[in-house]
Formats: sequence, C-alpha cells, structure tokens
Amino acid sequence: MIPESGKSKGAIAVNSQAALPPWIVLDPLFQGWLLEDIGRGDRTTSAIYIEEIEEAPPARAEWIVKEPGAVAGLPFARRIFSLLDSRVEFTPTIVEGEYCQPGQVVAQIKGPVNALLSGERVALNVVMRLSGIATLTRKYVEKIADLPVQLVDTRKTTPGLRLLEKYATQVGGARNHRMGLDDAVMIKDNHIVAAGGIGGAIARVRSQIPYPLTVEVETETLKDVKEALEHGADIIMLDNMSVEQMSKAVPLIRQHNERISIEASGNITLETIRAVGETGVDYISTSAPITRSTWLDLSMKIRG
Amino acid sequence: MIPESGKSKGAIAVNSQAALPPWIVLDPLFQGWLLEDIGRGDRTTSAIYIEEIEEAPPARAEWIVKEPGAVAGLPFARRIFSLLDSRVEFTPTIVEGEYCQPGQVVAQIKGPVNALLSGERVALNVVMRLSGIATLTRKYVEKIADLPVQLVDTRKTTPGLRLLEKYATQVGGARNHRMGLDDAVMIKDNHIVAAGGIGGAIARVRSQIPYPLTVEVETETLKDVKEALEHGADIIMLDNMSVEQMSKAVPLIRQHNERISIEASGNITLETIRAVGETGVDYISTSAPITRSTWLDLSMKIRG
Amino acid sequence: MIPESGKSKGAIAVNSQAALPPWIVLDPLFQGWLLEDIGRGDRTTSAIYIEEIEEAPPARAEWIVKEPGAVAGLPFARRIFSLLDSRVEFTPTIVEGEYCQPGQVVAQIKGPVNALLSGERVALNVVMRLSGIATLTRKYVEKIADLPVQLVDTRKTTPGLRLLEKYATQVGGARNHRMGLDDAVMIKDNHIVAAGGIGGAIARVRSQIPYPLTVEVETETLKDVKEALEHGADIIMLDNMSVEQMSKAVPLIRQHNERISIEASGNITLETIRAVGETGVDYISTSAPITRSTWLDLSMKIRG
Amino acid sequence: MIPESGKSKGAIAVNSQAALPPWIVLDPLFQGWLLEDIGRGDRTTSAIYIEEIEEAPPARAEWIVKEPGAVAGLPFARRIFSLLDSRVEFTPTIVEGEYCQPGQVVAQIKGPVNALLSGERVALNVVMRLSGIATLTRKYVEKIADLPVQLVDTRKTTPGLRLLEKYATQVGGARNHRMGLDDAVMIKDNHIVAAGGIGGAIARVRSQIPYPLTVEVETETLKDVKEALEHGADIIMLDNMSVEQMSKAVPLIRQHNERISIEASGNITLETIRAVGETGVDYISTSAPITRSTWLDLSMKIRG
Amino acid sequence: MIPESGKSKGAIAVNSQAALPPWIVLDPLFQGWLLEDIGRGDRTTSAIYIEEIEEAPPARAEWIVKEPGAVAGLPFARRIFSLLDSRVEFTPTIVEGEYCQPGQVVAQIKGPVNALLSGERVALNVVMRLSGIATLTRKYVEKIADLPVQLVDTRKTTPGLRLLEKYATQVGGARNHRMGLDDAVMIKDNHIVAAGGIGGAIARVRSQIPYPLTVEVETETLKDVKEALEHGADIIMLDNMSVEQMSKAVPLIRQHNERISIEASGNITLETIRAVGETGVDYISTSAPITRSTWLDLSMKIRG
Amino acid sequence: MIPESGKSKGAIAVNSQAALPPWIVLDPLFQGWLLEDIGRGDRTTSAIYIEEIEEAPPARAEWIVKEPGAVAGLPFARRIFSLLDSRVEFTPTIVEGEYCQPGQVVAQIKGPVNALLSGERVALNVVMRLSGIATLTRKYVEKIADLPVQLVDTRKTTPGLRLLEKYATQVGGARNHRMGLDDAVMIKDNHIVAAGGIGGAIARVRSQIPYPLTVEVETETLKDVKEALEHGADIIMLDNMSVEQMSKAVPLIRQHNERISIEASGNITLETIRAVGETGVDYISTSAPITRSTWLDLSMKIRG
Repeated sequence: MIPESGKSKGAIAVNSQAALPPWIVLDPLFQGWLLEDIGRGDRTTSAIYIEEIEEAPPARAEWIVKEPGAVAGLPFARRIFSLLDSRVEFTPTIVEGEYCQPGQVVAQIKGPVNALLSGERVALNVVMRLSGIATLTRKYVEKIADLPVQLVDTRKTTPGLRLLEKYATQVGGARNHRMGLDDAVMIKDNHIVAAGGIGGAIARVRSQIPYPLTVEVETETLKDVKEALEHGADIIMLDNMSVEQMSKAVPLIRQHNERISIEASGNITLETIRAVGETGVDYISTSAPITRSTWLDLSMKIRG
Repeated sequence: MIPESGKSKGAIAVNSQAALPPWIVLDPLFQGWLLEDIGRGDRTTSAIYIEEIEEAPPARAEWIVKEPGAVAGLPFARRIFSLLDSRVEFTPTIVEGEYCQPGQVVAQIKGPVNALLSGERVALNVVMRLSGIATLTRKYVEKIADLPVQLVDTRKTTPGLRLLEKYATQVGGARNHRMGLDDAVMIKDNHIVAAGGIGGAIARVRSQIPYPLTVEVETETLKDVKEALEHGADIIMLDNMSVEQMSKAVPLIRQHNERISIEASGNITLETIRAVGETGVDYISTSAPITRSTWLDLSMKIRG
Repeated sequence: MIPESGKSKGAIAVNSQAALPPWIVLDPLFQGWLLEDIGRGDRTTSAIYIEEIEEAPPARAEWIVKEPGAVAGLPFARRIFSLLDSRVEFTPTIVEGEYCQPGQVVAQIKGPVNALLSGERVALNVVMRLSGIATLTRKYVEKIADLPVQLVDTRKTTPGLRLLEKYATQVGGARNHRMGLDDAVMIKDNHIVAAGGIGGAIARVRSQIPYPLTVEVETETLKDVKEALEHGADIIMLDNMSVEQMSKAVPLIRQHNERISIEASGNITLETIRAVGETGVDYISTSAPITRSTWLDLSMKIRG
Repeated sequence: MIPESGKSKGAIAVNSQAALPPWIVLDPLFQGWLLEDIGRGDRTTSAIYIEEIEEAPPARAEWIVKEPGAVAGLPFARRIFSLLDSRVEFTPTIVEGEYCQPGQVVAQIKGPVNALLSGERVALNVVMRLSGIATLTRKYVEKIADLPVQLVDTRKTTPGLRLLEKYATQVGGARNHRMGLDDAVMIKDNHIVAAGGIGGAIARVRSQIPYPLTVEVETETLKDVKEALEHGADIIMLDNMSVEQMSKAVPLIRQHNERISIEASGNITLETIRAVGETGVDYISTSAPITRSTWLDLSMKIRG
Repeated sequence: MIPESGKSKGAIAVNSQAALPPWIVLDPLFQGWLLEDIGRGDRTTSAIYIEEIEEAPPARAEWIVKEPGAVAGLPFARRIFSLLDSRVEFTPTIVEGEYCQPGQVVAQIKGPVNALLSGERVALNVVMRLSGIATLTRKYVEKIADLPVQLVDTRKTTPGLRLLEKYATQVGGARNHRMGLDDAVMIKDNHIVAAGGIGGAIARVRSQIPYPLTVEVETETLKDVKEALEHGADIIMLDNMSVEQMSKAVPLIRQHNERISIEASGNITLETIRAVGETGVDYISTSAPITRSTWLDLSMKIRG
Repeated sequence: MIPESGKSKGAIAVNSQAALPPWIVLDPLFQGWLLEDIGRGDRTTSAIYIEEIEEAPPARAEWIVKEPGAVAGLPFARRIFSLLDSRVEFTPTIVEGEYCQPGQVVAQIKGPVNALLSGERVALNVVMRLSGIATLTRKYVEKIADLPVQLVDTRKTTPGLRLLEKYATQVGGARNHRMGLDDAVMIKDNHIVAAGGIGGAIARVRSQIPYPLTVEVETETLKDVKEALEHGADIIMLDNMSVEQMSKAVPLIRQHNERISIEASGNITLETIRAVGETGVDYISTSAPITRSTWLDLSMKIRG
C-alpha cells in the first residue's frame, strides 16, 4: 500500500505552503499565545509610546539569525503580528526553510512600534522553536538523501503545537506520519493482547473505522511480521528491530505484496539512520527532530 | 488496498460503542445546544416548579416511540441531560439501534422535574434526527445484506452534527467514509485539471500528505480507471457510471491489484442499489440516509 | 391578544432580510462548521494547489439547482465562504426563497480556488438543508394561502441550527413561533398538574416572568379552553383537537376577547391543514417542514 | 394585554429561585470572572499555604454585612466558590433578599483555606453589587407597595451582568422588563419615523417577528396613544409624560381594551414614583435601582 | 521602594491611552456583551429597517451628556460599534476624561441605522458606568491634588469589567493598584497567622514568587509596621489606622528606608481623605470611586 | 528593592506546589491538548476495546524513566488523565522534581484501559518536555548553589506552555522572572530612545503603571547604570557585560541603595555562569533551561 509515495519522492520538492492549515484553524491558537504573553497589557510599551499610537510614522525592524540553521515558521510570525495589529507588514526575505548564517536578515517588518514590541516575543518564540526543529530534521534527512526512504515524524510533539511542529519537520525535508489518533490506525502490543492476537485486532479495527483509514501494525519479530501480513495490515512497523532483522523482514514483506508500506522505528540516531535506511524500508520514523532539537537563536532589531 | 475490510465484514457485528467519540469532544456541542434552546432561562418551568428544586422527590419519565424505526442516539441523550443536571438518570431500555414499534418505551428517566422539562426538547431532537437516519440506513443496508459490499456515507451531513450523523449511519449498519477533509484524500475533476492529469495529481498529493493517508480518485470512464491504476491510487471511485460500465471496471481493477478498494457512487437509490452491489464493488457510497431521511417521532411522558 | 398580526398578514410580504440575525451571533457557528469539515487541513486541495495561493487568477464557479424547489440560505453561504477567505465573492443570482428549476444557476462565485473547494461542502450542506425546509414550508403555506391563518414552526429543530432553520420556514412563508424557552411561556399538562390547575399555573408564571412575555396554554378540551380564558391566557393552543372541537372552541374564544390568539396544533398534514385553517384559528403550528423535509439537491461547478 | 399580571401581583410572593437561570448559562461567566482576578495564579495565597493543600483541615469563614440592606446573590457566591474548588461548602444563613443589619452573618463557609482566599474577592464583589441593587429596588417598591402597579427594570445594566442584575431587582421586589432585544418589541421614535408612522411600524413588526412576542410602543402625547391603540399595540409606554397627561391616557387606554398594558417611564425618582403609580398605570419602569445604587458593604472573616 | 513614583507624579499628565489594553484582550468581552443584549436578534430594528441594509445612506447620531461629569470610555464605545458593523464611524468630540455639561455632545456617529440602534444600549451602558467612576474619582483626587500623594483603586470592581473600571479611575486621575492576584503580593492577617508571623509570611512569599513582584504587608499597629520593616516589606499598608497613628508610622518608615512605599487604606471618604493625605503617605487606596459611584446619564440622538 | 529575596534564598526550600496555578486556569489548555491529539476519536483504541467500556476491570500501568534526569509535571499528567476520564487514578511514586535513574517507576496508574491509551501521549509529552527543562535547570543551579545568587528564567518559552515551563524551572531550582508583559516593567534600548533617555523612560512608566509594579532597566555600560540609579530604577539588568564590567557595577549599585536588585543577563552558559555569580549579582537570567534542553525520555507500560 501507498508504495507510490516512495517512488514519487524527489519528483516534486516538498512545498511548505502545502502544509499550512487554513488560518481559521490556527488563529485561535495564535490569539491564545498573544494573550498568554500580554496578559492585561504590555505595561512598558504602552506607557512609553503614549503619543504615537495613531499618527506616528511606522517603525521598521529586522529579524536576524544568530546561529546557523534552517529558518521555519515565518508565515506564522506574519500572521501573529497581523492579528495583534493589522497594519503590521511582515515580509520574509528568505525562502521558508532556507539554511541561514549568523547575521542574515530573514524578515523585514514595518508597522506601529508598539505592535512590533508587544508581539515580538511570541512571534520569535514560534520561529525559534520551529527553526530548531527544521534544522535538526535536515541533519537526519541529509544522511539518507540518496536512498529511496523517507524520514517521518511521530506524535511526540509539544502539546498545542502539533500542526506547527509537524509543519517544521516537513519544511526540514521529512514527511508527516499521522497527525492524531483519528486519521490512521496504529495497533500496538496492548491492542494485540486485548484482541487475542494480531488477526483479531485487525479484524476488529477493520469493521469499525472509517473505511479509507489505513491500518499499521507494530511488529517486533519476524513471526509478528508474518502474522500482520496474513491478516492484511496496510503498513508494517518494524519496531526496535536490529538492522539484521529488518534486512530479513523487508524482502519477506515485499514478496507478499508490493503495496504494503514498511516503517522502521526505535532508537534512530544520526549514527544509525543510514544503516536502517539501507535495509530497504520505505519510512524511518523518529521523534528526535522534535524532542532532541534546541531553539535556533534569532532576534529583532528596531531600525530608527 | 484495504480489501481486508470487505472480507471481515460481518465477521464482527458493528458495535455502536466503538463509534462514540470521547465526551471531551462532544460536550462543547451539547452545551451549545442546550444554551440554544434555554437562552436566558426556561421561563415556564422555572416559574412553575419554584419550591421543588432542592427537596422534591425526583420525577420519572419515559421516552416512547411513535412510529416504527431504528432508535439511535440514546447515549447522547443521557449525556445531554447529565450536563444540564448531574442528578438525572437516563436509562435506555433497548439496545442502541434496535428497531422499535409505536408505543415501545426506549428509555426510563429519573431526576429533578425541571431538568427533565428543560432538557427534553434538545435531547429528543437529537434522537429523533439520528433515529431517522439509522432507520433509512437500515433500508439501504438490507438490500445488499447478503452481498460482499458495504454501504458508506459521505460528507453531506448537517453542519455541526457530522460525528453524530455518521454515528447513526454506523448504527444503521453502514460504514463511515472519511470524516473530514483531513483524514483521507479524494481527487476530483478540478484537482485533476489543475494538476494536468490524474498522474500529476496523485504525485503532488503523495509528496505532501501525512504518509498513512490513502488516496482515492474519482473516475468517470474506463480510461480514467486505467490511469488511476497506473499511478497508484489506493481507492478508485466509479462515479455516476452505469451498471454496465461498473461491471467492466471491477475486474479490470481486481486484475491490476487485489488490494485496491472499489467504491461506487452517484444516483444510488433503494431501487438501484442491489444491481450496483452485484457488480462486485467493495463499497457503495450515498448521502441518502442523511439527506433523504425524515425524523423518527418520539415523545416524553412524565409519570407522576 | 396579538390579533393584529392575523390582520396584517399579507399586507407586507415576509422579508427574509428581517429574519437574519447579526453575523456576530452566527459567525461562531459558521467557524465551528468549517473546522468540523476541514479538521487539520484540506489535504487534497492544499497539496494540489501549491503554487497558486497568492498570485493565481481567481477561479469562477456556479451553484446549480438539481431538483425543483425553493432555495434558501444563500446569505449564509456567502458569509461562510468569506470567513474562510475574505477574497471570495459569492453573488446570489436569485431572490432568496425563489422557486427554482433543475439546472438553474442560483449563485456565481469568484475567488481563490482552494477557498472555493475547501468551503464548498459546508456551504452547500447549509443551503441544501435550508432549501429543503423552505420548499416543504411552501407546500403547507399554499394550502392555506387564501385563509386568514398563518403557518408557524415549533422547537423541533436540528440542534445548533435553530436560527437558520426558523429563518428557512420564514423564507418559505411561515411565521416563527417562540425561538427558545425564554421568549414566551407555554404551559403544558405537566405544568398544570404541578401547579394544581390552569389557574394556578398561569398565576405562578405571571408573577415571575419578564412582564412583556405572553402566556400560551395548551388545551385539549373545551373545558380547558374555558379555564384558560378565565385565568387570562394570552394565547390558547388547541392541541390535538378534532376539526369539530376546534370549530366550537374558536367562537368561544373570540366571544371572550378578540385579542386572544388561537393556535391549532397536532397531526397537521398536507391533507388536514386546510380543514383546520377553515375553523378560523389564527395560527397552525407544525414541525413537519423541518422534521419531514429532505434536502434540496444543489451542486457547485468550477468554470475554468 | 397581560393585565392578569397586575391582578396576580401579591397573590404569590416573588420567589428568587424562579429567576435563577440554569448554571449551564452562568458558569462560563463565573469562570471568566475568577480568571480575571486570579490571572496566572494567586501569588500570595499559594506561597503561604504550601503544605496544606491536600491534608489540612478545612478553614471556616463567615460573611458579615457591614451596612443595613437587602442581601442578594448568595446562590451565585456559592456557585463561584464551588467552581474554584468543589470542596468548598457555602451555606447562606439568611433568606435570599432579607434585609440585614450591620454585623449580621449571611453565610457560613467551610473549605480549603486557599480556595476561600482566592475566591473571596470575586464572590464578594458579586454579592455587594447585587445587594446594592436589591436594597435600592426595595426603596422604590415600598413607595408603591399598596398600589396595583409594579416596578420594572430596563436594559440599562452593566454589560455581562444583565441576568444577575435583573435577578437582583426581582429579589428586591420588582418585575423584569424584557431581557434583551429579542424577547419583546419596543417601538421608539426612530422606528416610527423610519416606518412612516406608528401604524406602519407596528404592521412591519407584526409581519416579521416570532408571533408570541408582544409589541410595545413608546408614546409621548395622547395623539400617539390613540394611534398606538388603533394599530393594535399590546403595551403602551407613556414616556416622559406629566402625571396629568398620564391621568388622561390611562382611562383612554382602559376604555379601548382592558388587556392592553400601560407602562410609565422617564424621570422616575423616589419622590415622583407614588404620584405616577396613582395614575393607574400597570407598570413603572426605571433604571434607577441599577444605575443609581451603590454597593452594599460585606466582608469575609476567617475563623481559626 | 518605588518612591520615585511619588516624585514623578504630576511631571507627566496621566494619559488615558496608556491604560488601554490591546483590543485582542478586550474584544472577546465586547462580543459577549453585544450577544447578551442582542440574543437571537434585534426584533424591532431588523423588522423596521428591512429594505435599507445594504444601500441606505448612513444615519447620523450624536451622544449627549445629560448631567455634569467626566466622560470616560469613548474608545470602548467606538470599538463595540465597529465589532457590530465595521462601517460605523464613531468620533469622540471631547478629550477622554473631559468634564462635560448637560447638553454637551461627546461623540458623532455615522453608519448603518440598524447597527446604531442595535449597538446603542451596550455602548452607552459602558460609557455611563465608566463616566460615573471617572467623575467620582475626580472628586477624590481634587481633595489631595496639591499634596504629594496619589489616589489608588482596589480589587473591588464589577466582575468582568476590571480592566475597564480601572481604566476609568486612571482617566479620573487616580493610579491603579494591582490588577489581580498575580501581579503583586498583599499579605493580610490570615496569611500572617498561617505563616506564624509577618517575618515567616514574607520569607515564604519571597522564595516562591516571580522575583520582580513587590510584597505589600497590611499593618494595623506600629508594632506590625516595625515587624514588616525588619523583614523587608516593599510596601507597607496602614490599614484602618487613625490619622494620629499614621502620622507616627510615616516617619518611622521613612527613617528605615526611603524606598519603601506607604499606602493608607480603610474608611477613606471625601471628608477624611485630605487629613490622611497630609500624614505624608505615598498612596491612599479606596474602592469608593467604583463602589460608591452612580452612572453618568448620556443618551443617543439620531439625526435625520 | 527586593533584596530580601536574595537573603531568604535557601531558608525555605523551593516548593513545587506553590507554582501550580489553580486548575481553572489550566484546564482549558489541557482540554485543547487532548482534543489536538484525539481529534474526532481514537480510532484504534475505541475499535479494540468495544465491550469493556463500562464493566471491565480497570487496567494498571506504570510510567518509567528511560534516561537519568529530574522528573517534573506529574500533577499535570494526573489532571490530564482525570479530564479525559474521572475514573483514572494517577499516583506519582516520586517527589516532584526528584532526580531519577533509568528504569525507575515515577507513577502508578489505574483506570479504564481506553482512557489510559487515549491520554497516554499527551500526558507523556507534557512530562517529558517539563522534565527536560527541570533537568537542565538543575545543572545550571548546581554551578552556583553555594553562592548568594539565584538563577531566573525569561519570556522565551514555548507559546501556550509558559505557566508549565516556568513551573519546571522552579522545580529545577530556579526562580521565575516576570510571567508576562503585564506583571513587571522592563525598559530596553528602544524604549529609552523613544523616551529620550533612561530618565524620561522611567518617568513615563512610573506615571502610568499599576503602582506596585517594579521597573527594571537594561543597562550595557556603567554610564547606563548610573543613569538608571539616578532615576530610581528598582532592578538593574547588566546586559551582556563582561565579568569585569559587572564587578564594577555591583558595588556601584550597592553603594547607591541596598534595596536595588541586580540581574546579570546575556550569554550565560554552564561554563560562564559561576564567574558571573561570583560578581555578587542577585540574579542571573537565562533562557537556556528552556531553549537548550531536550526532552527526558519516559514511557508507559500497561500491566495486565
């Protein structure tokens, strides 16, 4: 199943625009984030800029990268500023996901100075976090760039930021795995035990879920793999297997049916990822770009 | 793909419990519905039952079916009453989805009389609407009950009630199709034109979507079908085809790969559904149980 | 009471505009409905139309009726699209409530193609549902068009859609009954029993409610009617009475006071409504236009 | 119209319980109010009571009145505390609306000490505000207690507190006027001008509104009164008329139809109200109990 | 601590603009208030102005003061109208906080007539309430205008309106005290008892709170004052002390450290405030401008 | 100002309980996070555990640490599970903030198996993120544990998680800096330029803000420091100064007034922090524990 995605990989460059949910989905988050920081008002800024709110010429500012990395999330920053004050113009000066060097300007901003100052921290926090993720994702992707395998993320994401963090892994060159508990099925040990075996678990699931959803089964042994194949899994996850085990599992699955997707998972590091990719699996999943990344440092400079 | 579901069909009876989303998902809807009816307060009831709010012995009531049909949605009614007043005990006396006769009692209710009266209309409206859907769904399902094909619903649902209405089709014996625009891909004419053909459309989609999502392609001719097969569609919809065309398309697809699901769609009626089912397709989709059903009449009787 | 409304009926045509609540009331509903369908994003559309979001020339589309009926709800469709993307221009080409024939174009739409596709289903679902209601309402209204009586709706409405469904009955030629439990009083059996009679019930209510609210009493016998008259009911509902009973009740009430409104209710069908109307009642209430209507089929065609 | 209410006045004592909307309506308000005060946390209390949160014996507190007045709103205080911490037991020791003397205890409270301290201010603010209103309402009501006329409130209420403030006037002995723009019609000068006269205005309104709603017309002269009578107003407001004018208007209206309610409005003070009441009107409306009242002082004392 | 504020007082005029929180903070409140009044729709206005919604020339209106006082809150009124209909132009014709005379026009309004009528009451209610507060605040401030002391407010504010009511005291010439339980610490008797003394209470608080927060201690005797000084209070409140006691406490504190702020509190009236101010305290806190003020009467006149 | 906090440091151990905001503040966040993951329902779990929802014996599970570190956030995990299903009992088996070793059990969980599985990911994500922060915070704190200086955090926090992430730094041994833009003032370059100097900036702020708020000034040179002292800053931040510069600034400030707090900021690393601490500053602020930490690995094991 879905083996085509393996083949089409590279044919079309990942386009970050495609991963942007409509603003109607994200705006409530952004408003909550602004309120979290502003609380009952930005005491400092509103006291300083008292006379300038309506007539003052707009201020200008720049966002500057302070350490090397791939910058992600600028469309969100633009939107956050515009929710705070629709007069703010936020213009990225790089392509989303571009790898930048210290000192590089990534956005020009124009607008009422108090909006720039009151929105600065929230907007920067988003972009610093997402850029850290995109940067580490790239490191993983580069290790397997020439292999017919794709890096995918997991559900280990910061609560409230899943859409954004998964956007960042995509900007970094990965593909997204399922977005939540409702857009794909993943059968794990507990489910298998409860249903009395892989076959029972798949049968129960198949009879209940929206029919287009795929069913992935976690396997830890070749025996598990065979059972999953027999009962019609759409995706087989090789979980915490050794490279050797995976090398045996892959041809077994391919022989059974070419349309079954194979995902390797567990203990993926920058050191181990290439060997895993060379086993011929379709996907390698890891939470590392999200759980092991630090923030990319950026700052805002007001000009004049 | 996902052909297993065809086979497992019937092996396990559809269980309505499985289709119930957690209350944390539905409670905000239910609260909104109660507020819609109650507004600033139930003038009549709160003026009449002034002395009884805290001490009065709870009232008892029954819900009675007034025309023959399958009753669905009682768990939602129970929850709605409990959100209004946690002391209300709502006990279904039938199995969810059971086909009932006029006069049959489907639930016993006990609780403060003002909660029973203030919540009555909202709870009944939900169950009357869902029972109408379940009842019509059953009629469609019965026509194809002995065939290896399943009835599925569509996204033509009353805004705000999708989870509930799709629950009702499942209680009526159908399977759910995708729940929204985000848990499966459906490529239609406009997409195909924009992408310069079925191949281009599938390739674009494959490179962007969360990888476990399936890709369904709407086809209107055998030529479309062949193109969709070539480019790796997971599900092929035969849209508005004649039974004759479908009879040709099905073996063509089966021959290509047994794991590709086949869905028939368009102009499905109680008269035509059986012939469509006999073409060998896996799924028949129709909005009729939702868009062509009327409400099943039920009423509440206060006892003492 | 309020007998003037009976007389003014027809003097001024019902204007659908008057029944439109301010957007500030409806927008939260519409946003919830869009989110229900879009979820985490429209996977298909956002993957296909990647390069066109900002610069592409807007697409054009039409909405076409596919079965004969009165079309209602176009202002809501326009608003829904505009909430998704303010650049969408949705222009109705008919008068709201107009009776249309299959193939007739009811709206022209212009805007970013992805907004058209992502918003299509929600907007159409609203209009299909409301048009079905308006269409059936008209059938009932036509039966009594020449009589000095008006059709009114009830509180049997789909949860979450009351304002819209009651708008649709008005577009179809009916008048609205109370909108919720808080804008009028309706005294039913249970209330009467609890208060120890009609007189006690009316007295309790009169002393508690906002004073401009009217008090309607459900009566099932002439004895009930007399009691309600004695105790000062503003509106008397003749509930489930035979035409013969109603024919006796009407003059009895008129004689008592010309300002008391009379409403007939219970088992109103297209077959029985005229006879009921001829008894001289002011209003006939029925949930049928809402609970017995099916959706009117419409579809969207993208042009170029 | 609705003249019965005048007669039933006094027959049944005003019951504050009747004016309490269901908690499902008020809880979102209360939660917002707690958040407004608590913000990101009660710094003082949570730092002081660090070791006691789970095990400590509950504290006890009392609410004490500090100036003479009618105390209203205790049920809201109880609910507010319980939303903050369900273990708090708040027990009023007076009847809602009772006129209290300085030093009198109006409630006993028991519960975790930090909940008592963090919720104190919000709960007291509500009761102090509402008690001020109830107290001033009583003063107005006492002036006309022996007359067949009732005091009613207006829509001049603090934004966000309408349900509570109108509850307080009812506790103080007044009746509520309409609760919002949607539960009754009030035709004023601008409407009359726009519709080309009182007759036109009433006709337009009658043809559009939910049929049980009453239509009130503001009149400033006897000519207005006559016109309103002719065109079927349900309620006639004598707006800013002199006592002399009112004394002429009342019999004019009574003669026309006994069921038309008469409301006096404009410049009602404690000095003028009795003379107005003696003109024979049914209702006297004034915003004074809400706009001219000050808060009644209460405080909380922790015991042990 | 913060003694500089005492000195800078008067150097810069209080600017109401500085106290305006961003709209993102207030808009949800305003929307709730509009919905509270409008409910399911403005029945009267939407029935009268049926033909004019889109094309009619905008109406013009004025807001007029009806009793002498300081007008506050016009920026909120403007925002409220614009949320209801973005076409409304609301132009204040006075400086915010200006003391106005009966008959004086304070704002010109232009826009669709139905928006003017449907939004009128909410907008006026806000401004009438806030103007009442600003007016009474001025009276208190004038009593101590020539003294080096400032009037401050308290947390006794109407639930839901704290930001607005504290804005009004500032417009009236007062300074704000803390805005909630989270932006400053106030140690009262109960805290002191629980922590075993002033020293223990301050120590506990210091070790837990965000470090920039100040710690204020309520003292009732000179002994308390000394203890608070010893343990490092930042602000000392002289609570319910006599002028004589305060006259002793002030030099005691000044001697200890010039940077400690002194606040007098308890039983502040227009009669007593000056004597308190002359003791040399930095701040005098009272809830009177909020709890003892009545509304300032304003009305709207439609022109043409 | 606030120098006492320096001295009280260590006198009372940091207590994580103190930093927990009331659930009324956090519950909306937690509900949003559960909905983010669950979406329209947990397809896998609800299909597998169909028969067990009401009667099944509760499952038991453990949370196990998989790498060494300080575990923080267990109270939040408990609350998250209880919001999903009130029957879940989540019992931490360690003290909040305890440093754990791989394999160590940190919590026992008992409850309906589907609640355990559907809530697992969200609850773990929170605790993994917060534990990573607490762990890195400890590393910084240990470097200066014997010095009279405290580590403080910044506003660089993940949007939506500020309260939780700042709780984690406190559990790790740091103090919180201001929580948002509204609970303390921080004057930076742009403000100083706009106000025409440090003096002007402080004066403007002092005249507008709630009076108990402290004013912190960022200084980059000794000249800045002197100016800030002269104009009455409460807290002086030495921003990006060398250790040498700081060593000169500290005595300068102490000499001026002992109550002024001194905060060092900029380029704080595990290597440089001790030298900075030895200059005698009161606080060292750094975002590193939040922006440079990775997640601490934990997992859930179902037992039987």
